[in-house]
Amino acid sequence: MSSGKLVVVQTKPIPKGTPEFQARVDAILAEFAAKVPDELILPTSITSNPPKNVTGIPRECGILTEEELDITENYDAVALAEAIASKKFTAVAVAKAFSKRAIIAHQLTCCLVDWFMDEAIETAKALDEHLEKTGKTVGPLHGVPFSIKEHMPLAGHYSSVGYLETRVKDDHDAQMMAILRKAGAVFYCKTNQPQGIMHLEGVSIYGRVLNPYNIGLSAGGSTSGEAALLAMRGSILGVGTDIGGSIRGPAGFCGIYGFKATSYTLPCKDFLPNGFAAELNVLCSTGPMCLTLRDMDLFMKVVQAAKPYLEDPRLVPIPWTGLTGPKSPAPLKIGIMTSDGVNIPQPPVLRALAWAKSQLSKSPELFNLKPYHPYQTATAMQNIRKAYWPDGGKGTRDTLAAAGEPMFSLTEWILKDAGTEPLTPDQILDLRVARDRFRVKFAEDWNKQDVDIVICPVFVGPACEHDTALYWNYTALFNYVDYPGAVVPTPFKALKKGEEDYPAEFATPISAEDEHIRRLWAEGDFEDAPVTLQVVARKYHDNDLFAALDTLKEALQLK
Amino acid sequence: MSSGKLVVVQTKPIPKGTPEFQARVDAILAEFAAKVPDELILPTSITSNPPKNVTGIPRECGILTEEELDITENYDAVALAEAIASKKFTAVAVAKAFSKRAIIAHQLTCCLVDWFMDEAIETAKALDEHLEKTGKTVGPLHGVPFSIKEHMPLAGHYSSVGYLETRVKDDHDAQMMAILRKAGAVFYCKTNQPQGIMHLEGVSIYGRVLNPYNIGLSAGGSTSGEAALLAMRGSILGVGTDIGGSIRGPAGFCGIYGFKATSYTLPCKDFLPNGFAAELNVLCSTGPMCLTLRDMDLFMKVVQAAKPYLEDPRLVPIPWTGLTGPKSPAPLKIGIMTSDGVNIPQPPVLRALAWAKSQLSKSPELFNLKPYHPYQTATAMQNIRKAYWPDGGKGTRDTLAAAGEPMFSLTEWILKDAGTEPLTPDQILDLRVARDRFRVKFAEDWNKQDVDIVICPVFVGPACEHDTALYWNYTALFNYVDYPGAVVPTPFKALKKGEEDYPAEFATPISAEDEHIRRLWAEGDFEDAPVTLQVVARKYHDNDLFAALDTLKEALQLK
Repeated sequence: MSSGKLVVVQTKPIPKGTPEFQARVDAILAEFAAKVPDELILPTSITSNPPKNVTGIPRECGILTEEELDITENYDAVALAEAIASKKFTAVAVAKAFSKRAIIAHQLTCCLVDWFMDEAIETAKALDEHLEKTGKTVGPLHGVPFSIKEHMPLAGHYSSVGYLETRVKDDHDAQMMAILRKAGAVFYCKTNQPQGIMHLEGVSIYGRVLNPYNIGLSAGGSTSGEAALLAMRGSILGVGTDIGGSIRGPAGFCGIYGFKATSYTLPCKDFLPNGFAAELNVLCSTGPMCLTLRDMDLFMKVVQAAKPYLEDPRLVPIPWTGLTGPKSPAPLKIGIMTSDGVNIPQPPVLRALAWAKSQLSKSPELFNLKPYHPYQTATAMQNIRKAYWPDGGKGTRDTLAAAGEPMFSLTEWILKDAGTEPLTPDQILDLRVARDRFRVKFAEDWNKQDVDIVICPVFVGPACEHDTALYWNYTALFNYVDYPGAVVPTPFKALKKGEEDYPAEFATPISAEDEHIRRLWAEGDFEDAPVTLQVVARKYHDNDLFAALDTLKEALQLK
Repeated sequence: MSSGKLVVVQTKPIPKGTPEFQARVDAILAEFAAKVPDELILPTSITSNPPKNVTGIPRECGILTEEELDITENYDAVALAEAIASKKFTAVAVAKAFSKRAIIAHQLTCCLVDWFMDEAIETAKALDEHLEKTGKTVGPLHGVPFSIKEHMPLAGHYSSVGYLETRVKDDHDAQMMAILRKAGAVFYCKTNQPQGIMHLEGVSIYGRVLNPYNIGLSAGGSTSGEAALLAMRGSILGVGTDIGGSIRGPAGFCGIYGFKATSYTLPCKDFLPNGFAAELNVLCSTGPMCLTLRDMDLFMKVVQAAKPYLEDPRLVPIPWTGLTGPKSPAPLKIGIMTSDGVNIPQPPVLRALAWAKSQLSKSPELFNLKPYHPYQTATAMQNIRKAYWPDGGKGTRDTLAAAGEPMFSLTEWILKDAGTEPLTPDQILDLRVARDRFRVKFAEDWNKQDVDIVICPVFVGPACEHDTALYWNYTALFNYVDYPGAVVPTPFKALKKGEEDYPAEFATPISAEDEHIRRLWAEGDFEDAPVTLQVVARKYHDNDLFAALDTLKEALQLK
């Protein structure tokens, strides 16, 4: 069935490790390729000469049936769950459609690290039989396909924390996966993540994740594969993690929905099985990535309904009310944050912000708009970059060396401020004290600016060219203060090179970073990159954030 | 007015520091003594030859008027607030009564480190005028006197973290104090705490806090002064902190109510102004200490109504429902934990547990009783004792040395497992991973034993003899898992020496610790020590704990 001839489009090479290391990687890739039947392999006419925007290929390539195109293109998870429950589609048909589309997406974007259609079909078959026999679904996600980021343990599959040396076969589901599985989710693939899971792009030893809208651009990271896969509609609902922007960045780059919850409100148990020293001071969070607002809410409802705090008592048991709970106050006080004070976002983002402002200003009874200037972004960034690496990066260097794995340029970048020596306990405590003082100051400033939510950029631009996602400010700031943030698409895409520029009021760079960002803009080709916005609320005010999103829905044309 | 001749009863000497150090301490004590008018000084006939139980002296000494005795003996905070609001008492009369009684209590137990009646009367006068003028109280605590643990910043007064070298004059209230002040609280004293705030007793450089019921016994710690002062009714409501039992221990030793909330549900901002490295892995918590159940609830209501999370975003905004919120499930599943598996509590505690069990078993429709055996207490204790000192105790040793302050024996004890070298970041991370794994296992085990709450000892015995509060298990276990715990008095006191012993079923020691505890029991004189119990609920289930306390109220004869 399979010739093992899986070609994956790549637009920029990645560094190689030792021959022994590359042999191990090649073996893993060969094992993956061997699972892919020949009839799902794209013609080399496509993979050797792909268009810049590959989002149309799943429809055009002829591999998917009309029903499979319908299933994968015309439903969100809520609608798909309804369609399966009402027997419009079988779970098997859905599992097959998404598995097939996912492997097509992979060949064009390198979004997967594992793919198991056969297992998915088996699971789906059991669900179909259950529905047939009992007349009931097993849960609210009955038959809904779910893509999973590589580092999240799924029974019977491999996970790693972004280094080959940490790759292990898991014999159990992580808590989150177990909850989703129990609710009826069907797993069929694991998605690509960058080295150390600590880039805002998706460059892993298995390849570089490309942006489906423009393969010269990054898909964002670290939940890179999820974002590219969802944008290709090879998935309907996935899970990411975010300690600096890893859900919101790729959601932004690929034009999908993504939500980073306040830390410890959603289960992360076993996502980083041996811990991550950054979490001594900056907690990783998790949340859904998907294609509609209501699917984010569905995910939250399902996970919270399982009372995950009973199993992992780190989790705060705040009941989920989300989109359908208490309404936002009227008018909702919205801070429009055009700049983080360190740099000005690139033109398409400014355009989207201006559009949002103009849309919202049409309903003063609903929205009270004001400019918002965040408190000391530069300090937050300095502090969080140190807080990520209490060991001075030693663990990373040692782990890479142990396997002969090369250090990628974006790994070097994020380690740049880590120093070289492990911190003392007093220095780690200083980081904690600085964090807590910053959080109090930030909250005081937020209260003084008197806003319920803030609408701001997700990144300094739309998706960036490969290996240039250096400035994490717009996302990491909200990890440092641990505020929940959702990314939502706008109707815009970046125009052709040369067709738009900075408006006059933002013509002057405000920092060296800003100058670099403008250079990247001038030199880059961002055509078709989706443009998204981020909506942020106070820590633990995740329900209020969703109430606000519900209020914003019409004006911002959210799906 | 003052001759500065303040004598404070002490039953066991404390070690001395360098002459320079002692001169600094003496100057502080002289400044304190100078504030006490002669008419509030107890006759030397009492202080030079005090009875073992000093709780009757405030009534007998003749210093307090009949109204002052009424005010200090016949009201809890709820009733006192009502009496002031209805103008039965002025706030000034109340402030004076408690200030006077507090300074009497201090001479008998060494419960204070500062006392400021004049300031309290000024504050109270302003409150009385406000009520007179507006017909309204300033808030729910209008005129209610509040005692404060030394390390909590109060504008215009000194605080320290339990070492002379850290003593500073504060120019602002800590967040908690500001909330209480705004609600109408009147501050009039600060209370004694042990060296480093890390003993389960109250031995500070200013003296040793004695148990009012038996001055041969400790008052518990580290919120030692609060507990002794409340037991003397020199306060009606106070605030403690607890990272190993520092609210619950002294509440237990002195027979009062005390509540350690789940961490980060109540404001602790500025309580440890430069941080405490233990908090990298074990968070300190706070909560009320008082004389009735409903006063704990009042405290919680007032503090949570101020939305403290808006100022300090570390705080989890779980709305307070407490005693008057949703009722407990019926029957309430109660685990009776007689032993922690490491040691058996001393006879009076066993007696109280047996009584509680017998009382509750009369209402099977309300209470479903079962034995409860906690998961691996010994591991928790090993881990938490290490987690307290990431720097190997270096900071403590350096701080003591800098001032010539002697290290007390209980400081040596709590540093015993700290090692001598600072931990590496990896070792600190290992402590975090171990903690989180333990918490999950503990929760799993709790779920398996299927209990809503657990009733257990507060300590291995009632109050202990001085310098013998070595075994923190019954409280620190619930810091390690961060479960909320309330201490409630029983109607019992320990009997005269020789009048009670271990029942036959507990005749055999189960560990070396247990043997030591039995030796302490055999040798000690515990007469009149109050006997209390602890009630514990799941992390973040503080409201459920209070609902349970409400259900338990009648059967356990809670006030």
